[in-house]
Amino acid sequence: MTQKLSAVLDHIDADFDNSLQRLFTLLRIKSISADPAFVKDCKQAADHLAGDLSSLGFTAEVRSTGGHPAVVAKSADVGRRPHVLFYGHYDVQPVDPLELWHSPPFEPAVTDHADGRKIIVARGAEDDKGQLMTFIEACRAWKAVTGSLPLDVTFLIEGEEEVGSKHLVAFLDQHKKDLAADFALVCDTSMWDPNTPAITTALRGLVYDEVRITAANRDLHSGLFGGAAQNPIRVLTRILGALHDDNGRVTIPGFYDGVKDLPPDILAQWKALAFTPETFLKPIGLSIPAGEKDRLMIEQVFSRPTCDINGIVGGYTAEGSKTVIPSQASAKVSFRLVDGQDPAKIRAAFRAFVTERLPKDCTADFIDHSGAPAISLDWGMKPLAAAKRALTEEWGREALLIGSGGSIPVVGDFKRTLGLDTVLVGFGLDDDNIHSPNEKYDLQSYHKGIRSWARILAALAEMPKA
Amino acid sequence: MTQKLSAVLDHIDADFDNSLQRLFTLLRIKSISADPAFVKDCKQAADHLAGDLSSLGFTAEVRSTGGHPAVVAKSADVGRRPHVLFYGHYDVQPVDPLELWHSPPFEPAVTDHADGRKIIVARGAEDDKGQLMTFIEACRAWKAVTGSLPLDVTFLIEGEEEVGSKHLVAFLDQHKKDLAADFALVCDTSMWDPNTPAITTALRGLVYDEVRITAANRDLHSGLFGGAAQNPIRVLTRILGALHDDNGRVTIPGFYDGVKDLPPDILAQWKALAFTPETFLKPIGLSIPAGEKDRLMIEQVFSRPTCDINGIVGGYTAEGSKTVIPSQASAKVSFRLVDGQDPAKIRAAFRAFVTERLPKDCTADFIDHSGAPAISLDWGMKPLAAAKRALTEEWGREALLIGSGGSIPVVGDFKRTLGLDTVLVGFGLDDDNIHSPNEKYDLQSYHKGIRSWARILAALAEMPKA
Repeated sequence: MTQKLSAVLDHIDADFDNSLQRLFTLLRIKSISADPAFVKDCKQAADHLAGDLSSLGFTAEVRSTGGHPAVVAKSADVGRRPHVLFYGHYDVQPVDPLELWHSPPFEPAVTDHADGRKIIVARGAEDDKGQLMTFIEACRAWKAVTGSLPLDVTFLIEGEEEVGSKHLVAFLDQHKKDLAADFALVCDTSMWDPNTPAITTALRGLVYDEVRITAANRDLHSGLFGGAAQNPIRVLTRILGALHDDNGRVTIPGFYDGVKDLPPDILAQWKALAFTPETFLKPIGLSIPAGEKDRLMIEQVFSRPTCDINGIVGGYTAEGSKTVIPSQASAKVSFRLVDGQDPAKIRAAFRAFVTERLPKDCTADFIDHSGAPAISLDWGMKPLAAAKRALTEEWGREALLIGSGGSIPVVGDFKRTLGLDTVLVGFGLDDDNIHSPNEKYDLQSYHKGIRSWARILAALAEMPKA
Repeated sequence: MTQKLSAVLDHIDADFDNSLQRLFTLLRIKSISADPAFVKDCKQAADHLAGDLSSLGFTAEVRSTGGHPAVVAKSADVGRRPHVLFYGHYDVQPVDPLELWHSPPFEPAVTDHADGRKIIVARGAEDDKGQLMTFIEACRAWKAVTGSLPLDVTFLIEGEEEVGSKHLVAFLDQHKKDLAADFALVCDTSMWDPNTPAITTALRGLVYDEVRITAANRDLHSGLFGGAAQNPIRVLTRILGALHDDNGRVTIPGFYDGVKDLPPDILAQWKALAFTPETFLKPIGLSIPAGEKDRLMIEQVFSRPTCDINGIVGGYTAEGSKTVIPSQASAKVSFRLVDGQDPAKIRAAFRAFVTERLPKDCTADFIDHSGAPAISLDWGMKPLAAAKRALTEEWGREALLIGSGGSIPVVGDFKRTLGLDTVLVGFGLDDDNIHSPNEKYDLQSYHKGIRSWARILAALAEMPKA
């Protein structure tokens, strides 16, 4: 195996320019799942991936989900253990505000980062097309060099991750037999820093709600009606402005019910990490942690629940001025959840918080965008140890087991629906601007990411059989 | 004079269809002053009006102002007293949200209102093209029937009223000699109800400010940064949500400094008017006055200062969800001022209110959109009595002297720059949807508005000479 792996790694290095061009081809497809204008592009991305995996010898199909389609692909040599289910997503976030991009979001290019790092810039460069392609390219190299994979692989690549994976659970349920495996691999997480690999073992959950407040039955002139007519922006800001207290705590009754403090040994470990406002906030232009004042900043992003207003709009927002009292105002509000919090209860508590504060002649409508509980993985599972060893070998630094502030609901769905544990390995970085203008993926992340997966596949194949 | 007036009124009735077509021609011009895309349309409206007034024998010119041009037109028979300066504006408000219009905003039509009233529907139907045309059509009728006007008229029609009349004071100053008159007439106000005419003698002032709060130097992923990174929407809603207390009072320190209570006799008059939530709020779908709880609702809209958030925007506002912490969020905030409040002080107090509440690593930028003090006119001025008599004759009901919640800063500018008092007569109604989708002007307002001005011109000409 060691000799084969060595040849595979050499092939990855020699073929890297082609790996990059294949990623560029995928990045050029405008697969924005949130916007109905890009339905065809999403389908195109699914077709492209199915075609690519077929060319590698996978039995690949684009399957309908009720929303954007999913790709399911199975390696030809079914029967080689362990059998892994690899998950990724081809859909990307919207690109607005477009004017802040330094180059068109769907015209990928390699450029120089401020500090000299080479980076791939495009929407999806990291999340999740670049990450997804690290795994596909590793499989490609194994096939090219040895004619087969060291273990069996089933791919599940969905197209609705950025819009809450609404159809995924039903899809998993429907295709349970086809998706059977020993455990799952997901490449949608980050490294600890540009040179230190990491495996994510705790993920925050997410509740994402939208609230729209209606006051008058039409827009009004603020001179004629101002003072007597209720203004829905006033009502909305008053309610949202009360979501946090002076100490950064969320004020919704029951919000912290079930939230546990960190075990003292983990807290001690985290205290030892150089995770400071200087290292974490200064690069984004901030200096003061905005969360609960009595918590470490690393707790604020890894192990404490949060509330963020992700969007707000109402009234006249174009250039200039308009003396209008609008009829409606709305906001998108999301909550990052930790172990012990129930998404349904948090959503209900938020909605009660809003409706209790409404003037009697105003109404509130809500849209449920998504909800998933937090996840804690088993730090002792065997594939995790194998992946950790492989990552440590590739990067020359001990791979860390870390928490993540983000949510990857599919991990919980895999456990509940397919009975699978998941190993989360990814090569993203904090400064990748995912979901923002100028999203990027370090060229090194892509290159060593491919090499990392090649090693992990070998390490997993060498595990004692279950 | 009585015989001439009678012939003029008959002519107005006979020619009304043509008056309507002439208004339609003006309404078709998309003279939106706030949006740079409509610069040519504004110029077109000015050219059209100058051409129309020239055809009536006025010496009419389109004059540059530094922004959208103004029309100045003088009647040929200079020397007949009194000499009045008539002011109107040809610019209109933006039309968004366009999807709420039942017919295209620049394709005027006469339709039936819910209660059977005939209405003219278009952007600007009332504010101010319809109102402006009542006066022009009255002049046209006098010229058509008698060959001349009963008094001298100078027109000043500007194109920046809806964007704060930024260039008007300098323009008045520059053209002082050309604009000399005995007093001013303005047609940009409302009646008391559809059958009761009114003259407005008190106007609230206006301060309109925009605030933009910046937190991080770029948009962030709420999973990776949520909890530690400050969210500018959270900061903005917290600040704006604190602008009013539980009793509807504005909380900005010093906001009510200098604000006087109503004289007891006026308060008693106002109490006697049937101005109730049932009559004023129910038609717009509301029931609870939103202003200071210890004030009459009529005080809330006529004589008390207010604060309204006219627009707010930040983060992701399109369909679906995006887990973003935006870099910036902004709001447009305006204040209606009453006698005794200094616009500069109010603006400074608002900005201090914002900046004092900012986290240290956030910044706030402000844009000054406009500012004008409140105005109280002399209830005893002679032209006002003449206008009141003429209105009472036309409508068969005693014309009321009322306050207005809106601001018409030009009234103060005329006094300060040209030394002129102003008589404010208008035929708008509370349900005209000005600044909103489906703006309308009652057909009766237009028809009887033209007749009213014909009568007022006669009444003013018959006043004892000063």
